Amino acid sequence: MTQIEAARRREITKEMRIVAEAEKIPLKSLQKKIAEGKIIIPKNNIHKIKKICGIGRGLRTKVNVNIGLSPDNQNIRDELKKLKVAIEYGTDTVMDLSVDGDIRKIRSLILKESIIPIGTVPIYEAAVNAKKRYGSFLKLKTDEIFSVIELQAKEGVDFFTIHCGVTKNTIKVLKKTKRSVDIVSRGGAILACWMRYNKKENPLYEYFDKVLDIAHRYDITLSLGDGLRPGAISDSTDKAQISELKTLGRLAEKARERNVQVMIEGPGHIPIHHIEKNIRLEKDICKSAPFYVLGPLVTDIAIGYDHIASAIGGALAAAWGADFLCYVTPSEHLRHPTVCDVKEGLIASRIAAHAADIAKGIKNICDWDRKISLARRKRDWKKQEELCIDREKMISYRKRSLSKFCDVCTMCGEYCALKLIEMRA
Amino acid sequence: MTQIEAARRREITKEMRIVAEAEKIPLKSLQKKIAEGKIIIPKNNIHKIKKICGIGRGLRTKVNVNIGLSPDNQNIRDELKKLKVAIEYGTDTVMDLSVDGDIRKIRSLILKESIIPIGTVPIYEAAVNAKKRYGSFLKLKTDEIFSVIELQAKEGVDFFTIHCGVTKNTIKVLKKTKRSVDIVSRGGAILACWMRYNKKENPLYEYFDKVLDIAHRYDITLSLGDGLRPGAISDSTDKAQISELKTLGRLAEKARERNVQVMIEGPGHIPIHHIEKNIRLEKDICKSAPFYVLGPLVTDIAIGYDHIASAIGGALAAAWGADFLCYVTPSEHLRHPTVCDVKEGLIASRIAAHAADIAKGIKNICDWDRKISLARRKRDWKKQEELCIDREKMISYRKRSLSKFCDVCTMCGEYCALKLIEMRA
Repeated sequence: MTQIEAARRREITKEMRIVAEAEKIPLKSLQKKIAEGKIIIPKNNIHKIKKICGIGRGLRTKVNVNIGLSPDNQNIRDELKKLKVAIEYGTDTVMDLSVDGDIRKIRSLILKESIIPIGTVPIYEAAVNAKKRYGSFLKLKTDEIFSVIELQAKEGVDFFTIHCGVTKNTIKVLKKTKRSVDIVSRGGAILACWMRYNKKENPLYEYFDKVLDIAHRYDITLSLGDGLRPGAISDSTDKAQISELKTLGRLAEKARERNVQVMIEGPGHIPIHHIEKNIRLEKDICKSAPFYVLGPLVTDIAIGYDHIASAIGGALAAAWGADFLCYVTPSEHLRHPTVCDVKEGLIASRIAAHAADIAKGIKNICDWDRKISLARRKRDWKKQEELCIDREKMISYRKRSLSKFCDVCTMCGEYCALKLIEMRA
Repeated sequence: MTQIEAARRREITKEMRIVAEAEKIPLKSLQKKIAEGKIIIPKNNIHKIKKICGIGRGLRTKVNVNIGLSPDNQNIRDELKKLKVAIEYGTDTVMDLSVDGDIRKIRSLILKESIIPIGTVPIYEAAVNAKKRYGSFLKLKTDEIFSVIELQAKEGVDFFTIHCGVTKNTIKVLKKTKRSVDIVSRGGAILACWMRYNKKENPLYEYFDKVLDIAHRYDITLSLGDGLRPGAISDSTDKAQISELKTLGRLAEKARERNVQVMIEGPGHIPIHHIEKNIRLEKDICKSAPFYVLGPLVTDIAIGYDHIASAIGGALAAAWGADFLCYVTPSEHLRHPTVCDVKEGLIASRIAAHAADIAKGIKNICDWDRKISLARRKRDWKKQEELCIDREKMISYRKRSLSKFCDVCTMCGEYCALKLIEMRA
């Protein structure tokens, strides 16, 4: 039985208890929101993980880290290091987005080593297999897609991105929409190319019921992917994006009817003044399904600093109701991220999520700020090290710059405002 | 004659022409807003600088970089390196916040080498002089404050932070306000301590007219400092802050009556859901005087990453109407910043300002985004290098990670969505 099914039958699962406890919210209210599809608990019923989480209305904003092999970087050890760092620095979930190399092996290692939910994009493995088998992913057979989905489900993947909104119809809308950049989603591009080559409808849309069958059996949460998301702020909130969102809204409804947990993926590149509208549209069209945003980046110019453009967008999106932030690293648009990029991207996302949670009024969320501010007032550096988001960075910054004056930092030295005020108090 | 005076006499100055040209706005509208005090052009009439700027309503959001000697770091060469990097990476102004060492020497070098407006906080030099002369800044004499202001004016400083809102009255309000952290402003703390020790009113408030005399003579813009700004998000928008803001509003009015250009400094630490209200309050209380915000930081937890917390707050503040962002470096609260910290802090602020300008609807502001997006679509890496905010970083990121596949990056390699779509087009 899936979480949504249990909630609808007024049953309380072990997972609901854990989430209610962690979020300090009443079990009944959690159960109700799961039943309504406003909260999901992504966890494959055969995957053993220590740290599960709920995602959705009224809960702390969660963050996701992407890792995985690429055609140019196939070192499994590096990716497992990223997994470790991501968990150490507090990500809530990890997605394995491998698109080359030994995909099965890395996934099995990630699933084994992870204490948190793992997501994948099954169309990637299907495409890579087809390339190996037939020389091109365009030759991929429909059945093979579902075999991969089934396989990954059996292995214990907790949530799938399914690009079921890239349809003959939404591509028609896209063609009529004048865009700076047409498709920037890897899954979206793979499917659009396949559809054109094979002159067929997107199998993930056409046979969405098959996806639901598998997802239901394992209680895999579906993350309906936005394959037509805008990839430039000038394309934000255009007809192609909204047309796809409406398709995802209908499919989300179908998923809930089948008692499958579902969330919706969102852009991408959105200027600040479009963000509130984007959240409202998703919540309206998809009946308050949890919203998983990819950034969003509030400008296209931040090459090398997209984690910052994304922290701005993510904080705003979450403050207005987005539930789940996909991190963006400083190397976005430039290269396969390093371990260090992963850490930087994750911390930027966590800052955005926390800042948004203060605005959302999440219970007790300001305790962390208050404790740090009190330690700061007292110049209690040890306490700040214990509490801060990146102890390693704080220590390295301080180590290289210690004040000759007692207990202050080298910015103000004896003119430290906190100390001046205390001395004269 | 000051810019505001000229504007009120319907005269057009050379500086107005330069600003109108740079911002692509009609001269008449600029002149009107300067006359109303909604726009300022910070430039001492004896300071020769190549790159002036306007700050305020309808203009591009500007950013400021702070540099200066501290009791622990007195290497003038390092600070001049920061000045160079700040100008190279596009800051609009620089403030010299030196609080120790050879303050006169560094200021004269900064004023000479800078092509952009320079600001200072004269109370710092006054305090440091008094410490040298009498052993403590508490022994500072009122006259000496005004001598320093006069001296700095003659040297060509373009704008002064004047902490004139720290008064007997606002401190009384502060004492009644339960705060996590009382005073975090260095100037505010110096003045509050001095006032208590000497049992006197703040001279910058009591003799504000004297400040105005000097400012008027040299057309120095006054930046009315928020010495009682909240230093923790739990203190945001409290009575002490608002009481000071009201004082600043009255003094801003006085300044305008005397034809002195004036802007208002703002917090500090503000959670996301207070930012809009803070901007509205400032614009109401200070009759649309340009608002110069210090961050704001949207959470206290981002130790080592305060440039990101500040980019979130700055982007939001500017999108809602703040005009001028003071940068925050990753080393805020930890140490005197390095040259690298200055660069990182500045770029974060510039991203925030640009993202806000898109939301503000500043004319042609999206051209930059559009050009980068088009170059990205074509995988034109040379063009992106030319256009990006930090060429050095982009090149170093790419150099260490080049794809074996033609013209894509190592993130997706042959599965680059942009390339897939183009190939099948």
